[in-house]
Amino acid sequence: MSERGGAGQNGRNAGGVASVGGIGEFGLIGRITARLPVGPTVLLGPGDDAAVVAAPDARVAASTDVLVDGRHFRRDWCSARDVGHRAAAANLADIAAMGATPTALLVALCMPADLETSWAEELADGLAAEAATVGASVVGGDMSSSPTLTVAVTALGDLGGRPPVVRSGARPGDVLALAGRTGYAAAGLTVLTRGFRTPRLLVEAYRRPQVPYAAGPQAARLGATSMIDVSDGLLADLGHVAVASGVAIDVRRDAFEVPRQMADAAQALGVDPYTWILAGGEDHALAATFPPAVALPADWRAIGLVTAGAGVTVDGEPYEGPRGWDHFR
Amino acid sequence: MSERGGAGQNGRNAGGVASVGGIGEFGLIGRITARLPVGPTVLLGPGDDAAVVAAPDARVAASTDVLVDGRHFRRDWCSARDVGHRAAAANLADIAAMGATPTALLVALCMPADLETSWAEELADGLAAEAATVGASVVGGDMSSSPTLTVAVTALGDLGGRPPVVRSGARPGDVLALAGRTGYAAAGLTVLTRGFRTPRLLVEAYRRPQVPYAAGPQAARLGATSMIDVSDGLLADLGHVAVASGVAIDVRRDAFEVPRQMADAAQALGVDPYTWILAGGEDHALAATFPPAVALPADWRAIGLVTAGAGVTVDGEPYEGPRGWDHFR
Repeated sequence: MSERGGAGQNGRNAGGVASVGGIGEFGLIGRITARLPVGPTVLLGPGDDAAVVAAPDARVAASTDVLVDGRHFRRDWCSARDVGHRAAAANLADIAAMGATPTALLVALCMPADLETSWAEELADGLAAEAATVGASVVGGDMSSSPTLTVAVTALGDLGGRPPVVRSGARPGDVLALAGRTGYAAAGLTVLTRGFRTPRLLVEAYRRPQVPYAAGPQAARLGATSMIDVSDGLLADLGHVAVASGVAIDVRRDAFEVPRQMADAAQALGVDPYTWILAGGEDHALAATFPPAVALPADWRAIGLVTAGAGVTVDGEPYEGPRGWDHFR
Repeated sequence: MSERGGAGQNGRNAGGVASVGGIGEFGLIGRITARLPVGPTVLLGPGDDAAVVAAPDARVAASTDVLVDGRHFRRDWCSARDVGHRAAAANLADIAAMGATPTALLVALCMPADLETSWAEELADGLAAEAATVGASVVGGDMSSSPTLTVAVTALGDLGGRPPVVRSGARPGDVLALAGRTGYAAAGLTVLTRGFRTPRLLVEAYRRPQVPYAAGPQAARLGATSMIDVSDGLLADLGHVAVASGVAIDVRRDAFEVPRQMADAAQALGVDPYTWILAGGEDHALAATFPPAVALPADWRAIGLVTAGAGVTVDGEPYEGPRGWDHFR
């Protein structure tokens, strides 16, 4: 129950376009649910009080991430479909970082009543499309009107009988390795912030992260001792691993290639590209530590070492630049 | 990554009180996590990329509900702890309505940067306390700054080897029964809306719903053919069952007692108390249908009948009053 929100006349907003306030909660839920494909892990899909999802090994991995308009995305920089991809990716990557395979997403969507209905529908399309890349489905959700457009997503996943790969297992002597890329999304955000729309490689990386989901369960099978999703910035996230494991981590700067478009953008904007690479988040790369005897497959490349001690260094030295982001500061 | 929000000087807001923007995301996560008890269904609790929760029968029930400041609660009407209880109850009730036992909650919390740190901590206490009443734990979450205080919760649950009790199974001849109460929270909201703070029975019912969680699995074991959580209003929610099951449902008005405090408040405020009872939500009663041969235990009382046809009637007649609430209208 709630106070009543402002819906325009005839279900249309001030721009004369069909709005979520106009169509109403149940109408919109029906329209969105009809667009959602249901995969094999879904035993009971949207439309009841709860969904039922397969959890084959009698455990479920679960994680929640929220995206807020104006903080995590801007509607003039990202389409609704992009926001769907990004919101799904942030959550699916957390599941992959435990060594699990994502099975399902649940979505709480808060929207101004005058938001176009098509925005909500395309958001759902983006969420479903990103989930489908790993065989997961959107199985449930809730919506409410709110002055602030907000997308809160919960992802569930299947550990496949393996122990979860936690942040606390890194040991001195382990090799630090990365799957996926870092700095691309941060560079894309900087480009957009400065008013540009290219290079396309970087802007698209910000809009729709390319997440190496399969590398998560792969690392678990290979015996990774720790793993984390790089969402706040490589050095900041490695800092979480170092603290949780009680170790020091050193990152080799020469392990990272600066792609030509990033080098060009960095030069044009007067930015050190390693700030993006070492401190930028939201590409959702996976960082993991492996015992030195493990032969790393192609998806994983060594980028550093775990040693006794504390803290994260770059080429053996303290790093003076920014390390990542705090969502309140 | 996100733009940076406004935090006051020295981590304090304009009132000189410690604020969430001041303490920062990671500081606040640490403080809240330290307050959360972890129950036996939690295999890996907060602090990693995802939690791991037991799913003993290889399935997990999952549901999401979101509460928005000014729409689902008001901070001058509800304490932070109350909001925690209400947010947890809304989600735990959805799990119970499938016939499942809740195991875990995940929470996405969006807060203005100047919100007092203690508000977030007390919210977490309320969430954890409500979850603990059914043996569930808060296992994970996310937080972000946002202009709009928003609490999105996902609940997970264990079906105990039983099929989920869905909305679509009601059959003509079934008995409609209710566990818990309706109208109390709606009456409490009306009382608060009119500027009063008593009767306490009603106001407290609005602030902290008394949900008959155990009646959900009990109904499943008894062979309930359908079940729903009454969150939008009894007639509105029975309407969902009638549509999903392809049946008609008749509710008997004389099955409901009007408690003295409700009768008094109704008279003082000039309201028909049956509007609260038949169309008020948020007490999170459970409504279920049972084959006529089932002997109803004390927690469940018969309130109507399922017949062939369509729609929901009261004492055999169409009901002309409001039936429930749409969160966009």
